[in-house]
Amino acid sequence: MRTIERAELELLATGAWILGAGGGGNPYLSYLNLCNQYENGNTVSLLDPADLADDDIVAIVSGMGAPLVGRERLSDPRFAAKPLLAMERYLGRKFRAVMSVEIGGTNALQPLVVASVTGVPVVDADAMGRAFPMGQMTSFAIAGLPTTPLVVSDIRDNEVIVSRGEDASWMERIARKVVTELGSIAATCKAPRTGLEVKRHGILYSTSKAIRIGRIVHEARRRHDDPVAALVEAEKGMILFKGKIADIQRRTTEGFLRGKARIDGLDGDRGSVLELAFQNEFAAAWRDDEVVDTTPDIICVMDSVSGEAIGTEMIRYGQRVSVIVLPAPDLFLTPKGLAATGPRAFGYDFDYKTVLKAGT
Amino acid sequence: MRTIERAELELLATGAWILGAGGGGNPYLSYLNLCNQYENGNTVSLLDPADLADDDIVAIVSGMGAPLVGRERLSDPRFAAKPLLAMERYLGRKFRAVMSVEIGGTNALQPLVVASVTGVPVVDADAMGRAFPMGQMTSFAIAGLPTTPLVVSDIRDNEVIVSRGEDASWMERIARKVVTELGSIAATCKAPRTGLEVKRHGILYSTSKAIRIGRIVHEARRRHDDPVAALVEAEKGMILFKGKIADIQRRTTEGFLRGKARIDGLDGDRGSVLELAFQNEFAAAWRDDEVVDTTPDIICVMDSVSGEAIGTEMIRYGQRVSVIVLPAPDLFLTPKGLAATGPRAFGYDFDYKTVLKAGT
Repeated sequence: MRTIERAELELLATGAWILGAGGGGNPYLSYLNLCNQYENGNTVSLLDPADLADDDIVAIVSGMGAPLVGRERLSDPRFAAKPLLAMERYLGRKFRAVMSVEIGGTNALQPLVVASVTGVPVVDADAMGRAFPMGQMTSFAIAGLPTTPLVVSDIRDNEVIVSRGEDASWMERIARKVVTELGSIAATCKAPRTGLEVKRHGILYSTSKAIRIGRIVHEARRRHDDPVAALVEAEKGMILFKGKIADIQRRTTEGFLRGKARIDGLDGDRGSVLELAFQNEFAAAWRDDEVVDTTPDIICVMDSVSGEAIGTEMIRYGQRVSVIVLPAPDLFLTPKGLAATGPRAFGYDFDYKTVLKAGT
Repeated sequence: MRTIERAELELLATGAWILGAGGGGNPYLSYLNLCNQYENGNTVSLLDPADLADDDIVAIVSGMGAPLVGRERLSDPRFAAKPLLAMERYLGRKFRAVMSVEIGGTNALQPLVVASVTGVPVVDADAMGRAFPMGQMTSFAIAGLPTTPLVVSDIRDNEVIVSRGEDASWMERIARKVVTELGSIAATCKAPRTGLEVKRHGILYSTSKAIRIGRIVHEARRRHDDPVAALVEAEKGMILFKGKIADIQRRTTEGFLRGKARIDGLDGDRGSVLELAFQNEFAAAWRDDEVVDTTPDIICVMDSVSGEAIGTEMIRYGQRVSVIVLPAPDLFLTPKGLAATGPRAFGYDFDYKTVLKAGT
């Protein structure tokens, strides 16, 4: 166990925003909350998952809702910690540690925010290795572990416990409706996991990975190198497309941010068009009307100069961007993983497609 | 405490359907369930609320959703009892008795069904004295008592606990969304009440009242008297209109059955038109475009010959009907009661109107 340094918070925010695959919400506000907590002496410890006892229980926390709403209704640490405290009351047990459901976007920082309030350490792991829009898209759900009980809290005094679910999809459907009614933004504490479950089925050391990715980008910037190139080289990714945002359509429906972005090619991609569809996160890419890459690959739109990720709610006409693809954790490329997180799970009638070479 | 007799079940079903004010769902299926339970020796006891100890806890049970759906998805006793058992687990305490949230419609029989499974007695009381469509329209909510925790169960293995609510309206909004997602029909166990709260704020002896009303109708039928006339005379009601159903519009939206019925006058009402608007229950009546009666009065459409109530989901073109008005419990005519259950609470921009003479 080690203390996460103040300087690492910014690296984590940058790395998590990239792993968000366009979704998960901009970590910037959580980052500011954490800076404030650190200034008040409320630092956060990072726990190696190997140090969890098998029968420890770990709280899986996240914000849930539409990222666009998160830009307008600011969060605070006390709010983020509410569902964890409610879950402790419900279980009649204290958590050993807290952990992120997804290392992509602001939810990567959510457990740190909760930890800064409650004093428990953060496990160096998550359940997605990126951001995904739905609760059944976690490594735990794919392993068949129950996804209930789940606690949803809002900024008012509303609190809902989904105590039993027919399956992960039902849990997601019910929780999503509740979150939508609460204003499409809520704090959640998902089904508690034992130390053994985390060690067996978690995506391990992903907090460290997000910090590492952030460091690559920040160091390349400082050296005046190309941060996008540095990133894809270090993380075995690919640059899919370079261009200029030509069109963006967005709508917040059923608690999600859905839409499409069109990018006109520049440099080597001049004359081509890339289309990206998203449901919070980017789900599929078409180059000149042909599918070239899909979820669960981590498709990320980045500012070509700064290497800063641009979320689906932040894309604007005229931005010069690089679209990159990073590999998802291997688990999501298994048949079970693809069934839960591949393009068909998002309603598309085509299979997983990737520009990444297997095994590289 | 006394055993409810087998013959009283039918009287209760008839009386409760009348007190449903068009909503609450046809009690017939619950009645059949109860007959079956009685045949298996699972009889039900009726408990005088005065016999509750102050610190007893009472389970308030109900079906929640759109009555029309209840006609298609049949209920069973085990399903009705699920949320009570879940609430006992959540509270870590056993209930002394079970009670109806509303004595109108099938929910009047719901506690009997639950009692026949669990063995606890049914309190002779409810929280509405009729049926109302929303959770904030109970005597307990009007008294300012908390409306959480509330448990919602469906026929699958989904179970949701609304553990805290900002207020009664938020609880209702959240629970309604959950019920809608579950298919617009669910069994609920509402906020537990102490014996003291039931005695102070419940609508007392309403189970006996529903049985009494049923008996009036059945006895008038047997004597070949006019059951509608017998009923309004005995219960200080009024016949508002006699006519033939000329038009009916219904839609199941947001977990409610909403719509309008138009009735062309017959006999003394020939040449006039009565319009009735409903949200599960009848909310307002217009005679020749003028508002003549509104909620919380118990507006009921009855078969003119048999005196059987006709629910909002059962109204058909051509039915010969009598529209009657019965007085609501006094509580709902107080300023607080009208704020919660008057026409403005249903979105109308007019005040309570009645054909009943005060004090009669």
